Amino acid sequence: MIELTDDILAKVIKKRPEESHKGTFGRAVLIGGNYQYGGAIIMSAEACIHSGAGLTTVVTTEKNHHPLHARLPEAMVLNFSDWELLYEVVRAADVVLIGPGLGLDATVLAVLKGVLAEQQKDQWLVIDGSAITLVAKHQLSLKYPKQVIFTPHQMEWKRLSGLTIEEQTTENNQAMQEKLGATIILKKHRTEIYNGQTVYKNTVGNAGMATGGTGDTLAGMIAGFAAQFENTSDAVAAAVYLHSKIGDDLAEENYVVLPTKVSQALPGYMKKYNRKGS
Amino acid sequence: MIELTDDILAKVIKKRPEESHKGTFGRAVLIGGNYQYGGAIIMSAEACIHSGAGLTTVVTTEKNHHPLHARLPEAMVLNFSDWELLYEVVRAADVVLIGPGLGLDATVLAVLKGVLAEQQKDQWLVIDGSAITLVAKHQLSLKYPKQVIFTPHQMEWKRLSGLTIEEQTTENNQAMQEKLGATIILKKHRTEIYNGQTVYKNTVGNAGMATGGTGDTLAGMIAGFAAQFENTSDAVAAAVYLHSKIGDDLAEENYVVLPTKVSQALPGYMKKYNRKGS
Amino acid sequence: MIELTDDILAKVIKKRPEESHKGTFGRAVLIGGNYQYGGAIIMSAEACIHSGAGLTTVVTTEKNHHPLHARLPEAMVLNFSDWELLYEVVRAADVVLIGPGLGLDATVLAVLKGVLAEQQKDQWLVIDGSAITLVAKHQLSLKYPKQVIFTPHQMEWKRLSGLTIEEQTTENNQAMQEKLGATIILKKHRTEIYNGQTVYKNTVGNAGMATGGTGDTLAGMIAGFAAQFENTSDAVAAAVYLHSKIGDDLAEENYVVLPTKVSQALPGYMKKYNRKGS
Amino acid sequence: MIELTDDILAKVIKKRPEESHKGTFGRAVLIGGNYQYGGAIIMSAEACIHSGAGLTTVVTTEKNHHPLHARLPEAMVLNFSDWELLYEVVRAADVVLIGPGLGLDATVLAVLKGVLAEQQKDQWLVIDGSAITLVAKHQLSLKYPKQVIFTPHQMEWKRLSGLTIEEQTTENNQAMQEKLGATIILKKHRTEIYNGQTVYKNTVGNAGMATGGTGDTLAGMIAGFAAQFENTSDAVAAAVYLHSKIGDDLAEENYVVLPTKVSQALPGYMKKYNRKGS
Repeated sequence: MIELTDDILAKVIKKRPEESHKGTFGRAVLIGGNYQYGGAIIMSAEACIHSGAGLTTVVTTEKNHHPLHARLPEAMVLNFSDWELLYEVVRAADVVLIGPGLGLDATVLAVLKGVLAEQQKDQWLVIDGSAITLVAKHQLSLKYPKQVIFTPHQMEWKRLSGLTIEEQTTENNQAMQEKLGATIILKKHRTEIYNGQTVYKNTVGNAGMATGGTGDTLAGMIAGFAAQFENTSDAVAAAVYLHSKIGDDLAEENYVVLPTKVSQALPGYMKKYNRKGS
Repeated sequence: MIELTDDILAKVIKKRPEESHKGTFGRAVLIGGNYQYGGAIIMSAEACIHSGAGLTTVVTTEKNHHPLHARLPEAMVLNFSDWELLYEVVRAADVVLIGPGLGLDATVLAVLKGVLAEQQKDQWLVIDGSAITLVAKHQLSLKYPKQVIFTPHQMEWKRLSGLTIEEQTTENNQAMQEKLGATIILKKHRTEIYNGQTVYKNTVGNAGMATGGTGDTLAGMIAGFAAQFENTSDAVAAAVYLHSKIGDDLAEENYVVLPTKVSQALPGYMKKYNRKGS
Repeated sequence: MIELTDDILAKVIKKRPEESHKGTFGRAVLIGGNYQYGGAIIMSAEACIHSGAGLTTVVTTEKNHHPLHARLPEAMVLNFSDWELLYEVVRAADVVLIGPGLGLDATVLAVLKGVLAEQQKDQWLVIDGSAITLVAKHQLSLKYPKQVIFTPHQMEWKRLSGLTIEEQTTENNQAMQEKLGATIILKKHRTEIYNGQTVYKNTVGNAGMATGGTGDTLAGMIAGFAAQFENTSDAVAAAVYLHSKIGDDLAEENYVVLPTKVSQALPGYMKKYNRKGS
Repeated sequence: MIELTDDILAKVIKKRPEESHKGTFGRAVLIGGNYQYGGAIIMSAEACIHSGAGLTTVVTTEKNHHPLHARLPEAMVLNFSDWELLYEVVRAADVVLIGPGLGLDATVLAVLKGVLAEQQKDQWLVIDGSAITLVAKHQLSLKYPKQVIFTPHQMEWKRLSGLTIEEQTTENNQAMQEKLGATIILKKHRTEIYNGQTVYKNTVGNAGMATGGTGDTLAGMIAGFAAQFENTSDAVAAAVYLHSKIGDDLAEENYVVLPTKVSQALPGYMKKYNRKGS
């Protein structure tokens, strides 16, 4: 088990190539945010864009388009029902995140099935929140499991793996990861990452981050890092670590750490660690 | 009568337990904001979330969902008419606040009656603004009065208690509190709290806070504190005091204290007093 | 002719009475913002609320309610078509501002006529922007002209007074003011105020403020000052002066002075001048 | 070829004439932002208004009006389908920008054709993004090419000029510019400007700016500068240079430079260079 430290940030957050354009830093598609949980996908989008993804499209119920754009005109938007455009942007994506605030109804289940069926060979798929529950409940199969990242908290991991929280030992988690083939980011007090090769354990994070939206923000960061950095295993570990690291610094001055403040701090933190690295 | 001071903050705002998750810090449901007064419930939600409640759902007319999410993606949303979901989240809540910008029409009266009927044994119910007027007018009865907090200003207290403003002496207020069984937060120049055991008197606050939204912000703080801190009597007193304390500091540099600025200052103030305490 | 200086601010911006509530600082109703010009009334509302009016209701096309609340939950809202509620809030108002972004169509003409007809004896009526054009065009009469403030720029003053810009001398303006009976705030390079007793001339302001929304912000400040300060002649002069004064300070560091930044600076400036005064 | 430096800023950003009004600094009309790409025209509008254009109207799908006004009440708004009003504001404009987030459908093609047909003799027309693609695809002709500015990236320039990226040498670009008659701002690692007389080459800019919205922000700045400054060739060059210059400064502290932050920095930067100049 490898403990995550600042080293992962210096390793991952490289100086950007001078001759580049927005496509160089990846196309991310974020799918989520239903009638009740629209804020979740907005927070994911803020994290993704502030982490430096080149182009970000958000697929969400239309009522969420207004507040998303009021906060973040940098995003592009589609509705769940825009099937044709949806699959067009999904196919062209470097990374697709599905799940934050997605809910469980028939429409979003159909979208999830479509996204799983359309996964491209080199495309990363991040499955979060209620999308994990849907995969577990409907036993949906993965086309390229090695290109899939699940981000369950302990209850979602129970649904996906069948392991009770007590049974969620490193060994059992590794065994289940192997069976699934996908990377597992198991969110808990000290988040663990199982990717079939390494087990990473987070060393930072605090109770001030225990508030609605923290997971949505992390999911958006994972998508943003996976979209732009080459070694996805490292990129994902860096996202997990940096999310908590920023949270710890904010918690020095804040009793509760609002997730949107983590996103706002991202460009500055990434620059700082970029300077320390290459 | 006990005068509120900084001591109440150090007593209430404890260090958060390291092993925790968002559920640890409570589920709050805030109900209010009609066609005309949507801003009220938005301000309550900002106060509740910035005070550290773990999960906050806002029930309000759909037109208010856009601006709420534009300011605060951390909140979840429902409409008054989403009966089934509404009662589901209400039943699961640790604290329900009803009233800010609620209005007086038949729809919201029905929601209020439903909320009163569904109150759970250990659930706190904060009744504010027009919900107080509705309770008084329709003589609605309380299921668990000891778990109810009313937050009337003097005119609303008159409606609820029958006491004219002149008659609202400490003694009379205590007598009426006893009859009602609920906690009374009587908002006035120096706000008083009657909970059947202690009478608290606020010692801070200023005329710069006399502007629309100040009461909505206080109601949201009360809900947020009640959601996460164990001793609710103390928590409520701490919310009342901190609201005015922040307002006094802001009034040093501002002729009028916009209520939303109080909410923005909350995480920093709570951290400061948390450090001074345990 | 009296030149406006810092003295007017110290004179007007008094310490607020300690025993007070939001009603103490006035009820303002702001009417404007059609389909095309919704931003205008939003900017007026920001100015009014940041200047310290106790309770502010904005009457505007419903599509403007979302962005208004996203920026300013402190405001209450109504639509032009909410006739009954509209006249209820208008009747209860201390000051009504009509005009910013109002447009010229039949609906708003009817609202304007209604507002003029409903004016209460002690109520102040601020007529701005296209409402001035409508008054001129339809020769609408005033119920209590001494309680009316017009805020024309030079072209609008031409429409209202019949005076060409060349003819707009102090003497002619005074004569026309006398005829109309209302206060005239003539907006130009150095704005002048004619109120039948004094002629005030502004001494501050700069070309960086020549951008869309500056007049709407001024109108909102005038409403906010009139709502809360007793001597309305002085209050209005103070609003005109402070608006430009803040603009001058902002122009030290900004090539263009966005009107919304003037509003954000208001509570701090008012506190500063309040300290210098009583 | 002339390399752009700080000199162009001191030359262009003159002290504003004291006796002026918002009309003095130009009327800009910005057309773009469809269902999917609404954020693009919002970002253009922020850039245009923050650069000091006197009056800015945004023509965009109605769903984009809410978030635009939530961020920027200073703008006026119309929908693509408001034909009559649209052509009225277009005719009165000093500069029209069409393209950011416009899309390619029949409605916007009709609007583009209308705008091209209505171009006034002294009016500047900035054609950006998908409007360039539409002009190329439908071989639309220009009424006053010398008053037209195209802002293609290399792929769009290929569509417009027929030159492959390899063929896009200074010489070939000059030849194609001559044929088209319009100014070409060719966006790439070091952006080049071809206006028939001079070839400008940008010397600043960085990879942190390679993110969605950077081009939309530049387009808005070009419109804002063209609206208010007399020598349009110089103004456009100044806009291109300043956009990258601000981006370089922001990149010192930010791994990714959000385009909206460039706009927010504009009034301060323009003041700084204005001070250095006249």
